Amino acid sequence: MNKFKFEIIHQSKKSRARVGKIHTPHGIIDTPNFVAVGTNGTLKAIDNVLVDEIGLQLMFVNTYHMLLHPGPDVVAQAGGLHKFINRKNPIITDSGGFQVFSLAYGTVKDELKSRGQKKEYSSVLKITEEGVTFRSYRDGTKILLTPESSIQAQKKFGADIIIPLDELPPYHIDKKLLKKSLDRTHRWEKRSLDEHLKNPNNQAIYAVVHGGVDLEMRAESCKYLTSLPFDGYSIGGSLGKTKDEMFNMLSQTVPLLPVEKPNHLLGIGDLHSLPNCIEFGLDTFDSSHPTRCARHGLLFTEQDDVKILQGKYKTDFTTIDSSCDCYTCKNYTKAYLHHLFKAKEITGLTLASIHNLAFMVKLMKNYQKMILQDEI
Amino acid sequence: MNKFKFEIIHQSKKSRARVGKIHTPHGIIDTPNFVAVGTNGTLKAIDNVLVDEIGLQLMFVNTYHMLLHPGPDVVAQAGGLHKFINRKNPIITDSGGFQVFSLAYGTVKDELKSRGQKKEYSSVLKITEEGVTFRSYRDGTKILLTPESSIQAQKKFGADIIIPLDELPPYHIDKKLLKKSLDRTHRWEKRSLDEHLKNPNNQAIYAVVHGGVDLEMRAESCKYLTSLPFDGYSIGGSLGKTKDEMFNMLSQTVPLLPVEKPNHLLGIGDLHSLPNCIEFGLDTFDSSHPTRCARHGLLFTEQDDVKILQGKYKTDFTTIDSSCDCYTCKNYTKAYLHHLFKAKEITGLTLASIHNLAFMVKLMKNYQKMILQDEI
Repeated sequence: MNKFKFEIIHQSKKSRARVGKIHTPHGIIDTPNFVAVGTNGTLKAIDNVLVDEIGLQLMFVNTYHMLLHPGPDVVAQAGGLHKFINRKNPIITDSGGFQVFSLAYGTVKDELKSRGQKKEYSSVLKITEEGVTFRSYRDGTKILLTPESSIQAQKKFGADIIIPLDELPPYHIDKKLLKKSLDRTHRWEKRSLDEHLKNPNNQAIYAVVHGGVDLEMRAESCKYLTSLPFDGYSIGGSLGKTKDEMFNMLSQTVPLLPVEKPNHLLGIGDLHSLPNCIEFGLDTFDSSHPTRCARHGLLFTEQDDVKILQGKYKTDFTTIDSSCDCYTCKNYTKAYLHHLFKAKEITGLTLASIHNLAFMVKLMKNYQKMILQDEI
Repeated sequence: MNKFKFEIIHQSKKSRARVGKIHTPHGIIDTPNFVAVGTNGTLKAIDNVLVDEIGLQLMFVNTYHMLLHPGPDVVAQAGGLHKFINRKNPIITDSGGFQVFSLAYGTVKDELKSRGQKKEYSSVLKITEEGVTFRSYRDGTKILLTPESSIQAQKKFGADIIIPLDELPPYHIDKKLLKKSLDRTHRWEKRSLDEHLKNPNNQAIYAVVHGGVDLEMRAESCKYLTSLPFDGYSIGGSLGKTKDEMFNMLSQTVPLLPVEKPNHLLGIGDLHSLPNCIEFGLDTFDSSHPTRCARHGLLFTEQDDVKILQGKYKTDFTTIDSSCDCYTCKNYTKAYLHHLFKAKEITGLTLASIHNLAFMVKLMKNYQKMILQDEI
């Protein structure tokens, strides 16, 4: 019996936005929803019990990092990722590919800076049809990541949702090479799916749609991947160098995915992108943006963001957001948070992260409400 | 009406150890007790509400740091330190002198390394009868700290227990200079007390007994300071270069203090020193040792300490201490903590600090119990 199920509660009359429920073995994810990134099996500066309390329904854990430490066998011995990290609610893991290829090519941002030059030093040793070989940044050992080994690792982790191995070509790539990469990605995803289906283990698997900013290739990717029995679809690969380029690609691509399956946007969850992406019908969004902002002292509110290091907060004895009932706002003032950031106290990072995460939970509930009322 | 009162519950038949209750405007401190150090108005990596929950009854905040940021006026505007940092339970502040003189001479440890040479660079500009002038490490401004200005700052902070300004001579000092320093410290403490008595403000003031490791001067210091109406006594200055030297000095000095008043040992609270110090009749002990150990992955248990970075914990799926009911032990295993430390995750620092602090709370309760049964 597969416990994974996507239920559409309401389809907006105004856009492709919808409210849904993703049922998983570890509970429900109400959609649209934000997915926080706990790379090493923890969010930065917030422990998992607290994350549960804040109400974050889905957490992203990176296979690349967990593969290098403590390794899939240790996690399996612990009884799986949920037990190892003590998270009660759903978890999604990726394939590990994104980090490996980021190490090879850098991020799109790095690329734009370097005008597409490959990074001089790369820990990626070889990319072949079989998979990708890289060097562990921890101890220098050579590791071969293949579609099969990625899935096997993700089986040992036991997340509710897993992701097939894909190749991430750089943003600056000519069409011919992009097509070659897309074809290989499709072969890798098919191999990943086959490996998964040997032992579904109550996990769902989301395909990764590729094609960069080439709309035809995106369409081709949707066509091929939706012909396979994936449980959901995520949009990956290069999303473009500007928000507009990304929005254009998404508006053309998401409608090519089956409405009855959940979909996920990989690595995007900033406040500016969310409204458009939700209108396109995307259901979940992972991003480390809100917690990274928090650690840099940028606190989200319904009005203007609070840059807590600004001098004006030194004597501001009000809370970050009077309408917020998070732990931080219940207990501490902006003046105290300003002081903690000035004094470079770790406590400040934790309190700021709690607030931004609680803000995201509230924001997504609000989007759900607006869709239910056909306001989006 | 002065809300400060020291009540002796039981005097051990076996040693000078006693169980007591220090009544303060913000509640009771059961003694003997451990005092955690929240330099900047927070413990490292644990917020104050959580510290309250862990049951830590007294917290040390450093005037030197709060003087430089956010400054006494901001804290006063917030309604005092308790409100500013949101701590419900008692707080003790020091005079700021310790940090200023540490900057001038380094710690005893630094001194032992440098064989008593004065540090080449010092932010202390001038020490006169009036006070000590130093440069702020934050913005380079010159600050004159006097007995009066220290007390005025501590009035604005509003801690339950405050400390007069003293001079901290280096460990390597000849007898004549030590005597000169002792006399000045006594004059400064008297001036501090006079300033305090202008506006007691429901705060208690603990004298600081000086004299280094010279037993005669320690006796002289006790004699002089106990002739003044201090509410309690703390042992400060150079405590010696070995534990034995410290124990010898304390065993001779503490009996010279009035039994009916509480006393405090400044800066010492390691597990090895506590039993002896409690036997000498000392009541409270501040130290950043347990939280610093935690951040370095040294976790306290009733058996052997756990060095969480050791490889053997990679697959140890038990909690730090099976008899511990702290948040960390309730929720996480050693294997997960090992992983967090390996991955250099901030969350690990917080969880480790919670455990060591909870351990100290439990340890002190146990000492209280043992004294009540005349076992110490």
